[in-house]
Amino acid sequence: MKQQTVETPAALVDLGRVERNVARIAAYCRSHALAWRPHVKTHKSRRLARLELEAGAVGLTVATPFEAEVMSEVTDDLLLAYPPVGPEKLARLMALPDTVRLSVALDSVEALEAMAAAAAAKGRSVQVLVELDVGARRVGVATPGEAVSLAGKAADLPGVTYGGVAFYPGHIRQPESEQGAALSELSALVGRFREALERAGLPPRVVSGGSTPTAFGSHLVEALTEIRPGTCIFHDRDIVQMGVAGWNELAYTVVATVVSTAVPGRAAIDAGSKALSKESFRSGASGFGVLYDHPEVELVSLSEEHGVLDLGRTDWRPTVGDRVRVVPNHVCVSVNLQDRLLVQTHDGLEAWPIDARGRGLSPS
Amino acid sequence: MKQQTVETPAALVDLGRVERNVARIAAYCRSHALAWRPHVKTHKSRRLARLELEAGAVGLTVATPFEAEVMSEVTDDLLLAYPPVGPEKLARLMALPDTVRLSVALDSVEALEAMAAAAAAKGRSVQVLVELDVGARRVGVATPGEAVSLAGKAADLPGVTYGGVAFYPGHIRQPESEQGAALSELSALVGRFREALERAGLPPRVVSGGSTPTAFGSHLVEALTEIRPGTCIFHDRDIVQMGVAGWNELAYTVVATVVSTAVPGRAAIDAGSKALSKESFRSGASGFGVLYDHPEVELVSLSEEHGVLDLGRTDWRPTVGDRVRVVPNHVCVSVNLQDRLLVQTHDGLEAWPIDARGRGLSPS
Repeated sequence: MKQQTVETPAALVDLGRVERNVARIAAYCRSHALAWRPHVKTHKSRRLARLELEAGAVGLTVATPFEAEVMSEVTDDLLLAYPPVGPEKLARLMALPDTVRLSVALDSVEALEAMAAAAAAKGRSVQVLVELDVGARRVGVATPGEAVSLAGKAADLPGVTYGGVAFYPGHIRQPESEQGAALSELSALVGRFREALERAGLPPRVVSGGSTPTAFGSHLVEALTEIRPGTCIFHDRDIVQMGVAGWNELAYTVVATVVSTAVPGRAAIDAGSKALSKESFRSGASGFGVLYDHPEVELVSLSEEHGVLDLGRTDWRPTVGDRVRVVPNHVCVSVNLQDRLLVQTHDGLEAWPIDARGRGLSPS
Repeated sequence: MKQQTVETPAALVDLGRVERNVARIAAYCRSHALAWRPHVKTHKSRRLARLELEAGAVGLTVATPFEAEVMSEVTDDLLLAYPPVGPEKLARLMALPDTVRLSVALDSVEALEAMAAAAAAKGRSVQVLVELDVGARRVGVATPGEAVSLAGKAADLPGVTYGGVAFYPGHIRQPESEQGAALSELSALVGRFREALERAGLPPRVVSGGSTPTAFGSHLVEALTEIRPGTCIFHDRDIVQMGVAGWNELAYTVVATVVSTAVPGRAAIDAGSKALSKESFRSGASGFGVLYDHPEVELVSLSEEHGVLDLGRTDWRPTVGDRVRVVPNHVCVSVNLQDRLLVQTHDGLEAWPIDARGRGLSPS
């Protein structure tokens, strides 16, 4: 298989860059005595997860029961960083191999009691982390009092053990160089939760946090014991814009073909929202992606199968049939749209499956 | 299978509404003597395509060679409304059964010559429609002169026949009641292209247009012979906002579970950007979807597996474990994220495959 003759759009992964990205975050965590538990939602690939584990990850983070199923083949240490709500999800979790040490993050009595009952019925033990809202306003208890209450219940119930706390600092999205104040505030906030839990006799053994935007500032958050960044295996336009990674650390692009140059000042490529996802640039700039080899060229609009390039700020003049590589705004949702990853390895181009894509449901 | 016990998020289709939606557009086209060639990109399902054909569709519209492959099992009359650029795409098209009458829309000499050469080499004949840009600034020739030039080349080349013109009025997105002026302008513009082609001895036999937002105004565009709306089989929040369909015509929702109510004023559900797509509301309103049964409740933010509901404008107070149905902003990109459709038929809930999802590539 050759990159020049694959049908487009196609997802291209540079394995050399993946290895360097993984080595960088692994080294950072080692040097700050942080456990590294990468989130697999970005790649959903067993082979890439194995590569992270071989580089020093203590286990894996997953967001869905199907990701847990798939990844239980490569590790025995899984954190479901997502409330396990509903009998269907609990049944899938309880069908994981007995060798799996499962942790779950949750923020409600309902989720806790159902998880405990399901685990007790199976004679299993699941570690519970109390999810904290540290500013993203998505999930997580808002106050130390609620955290103590839920942690106390987790400590008392059969089927579960209380392990500590988890949070996602998804609200911190400023450039890395300007995160200092936000990270100090985060550190103080997490500290208040930790102190309340300690006073209640429920000291957290695990304090699990970390996103890719804040990954390399994690040592500034005093209480942290582990981090869960996912995107940093590939990076994307958003992460580069924040100064967290450089252009030469981008390990994922979508190869596309120029299919039209008929509209003056524009060109259309065959990567649209069904290959990239029409996700606005979170760091404020416009467009739905840029070209890797012509970063001045933005995708100004996306239809389902068309990406429209603005040629207003470039001397590059594409011809119908030309191939380009697109850097997506958000890599995780682009990977999730692919049938496979084309991985440029040291031995050539290989097709790797995206094993945990979807829900694990048979199509019919 | 019961709706109450399927694992969420899950895509739910109301077959009764689908049948009524299909009957409505079929009746409209019959009453205005327009050929109806629905775009399958919305559902990618052979069974739903068959339902459209049985209701009177003259053939199907596809956007990718794989959609053409899949749909060649249910019709012999296919329009690829997309420039067929690149040897891999041409090879796939030329491998379609000999019984398929294939048309393609294109806007460049490069695409035309390559298509003609590929067809001639196979002893096939492909009908070419010249793609016009009528305002969307995506693909399509800009001037009648360019259209005449390309049509003339298509008429001369072996392997292809010249059939007429195609366009996509994707720029018309105002409410249906305010589209009059835009449709008059479109009619006049298409008329100028048609007259130029007639003067050059190249009268278009086919004038193919039509989107769901403009579908029921198609009779106001004088030259049209066929329309290609796709979304109108399901409709979505965007289409309802434009007044093109009513709430009780919405035939597709995503069933989700409330997984957290911990954050004051909000609730999180398990349908995020990997079930709905984080696509802004094109008609100006905010949010990434609304609840079918509580339309005052908007999804104010989406993460990959979390949808965050704003409870600020509702008396409804959800509990962890509750099920809700989400109306997505844009249905086509949500369908494309699903493993299957759960179709509420007259006989119960059935899982239907989304046959043409993906690129038709083996995962490894």
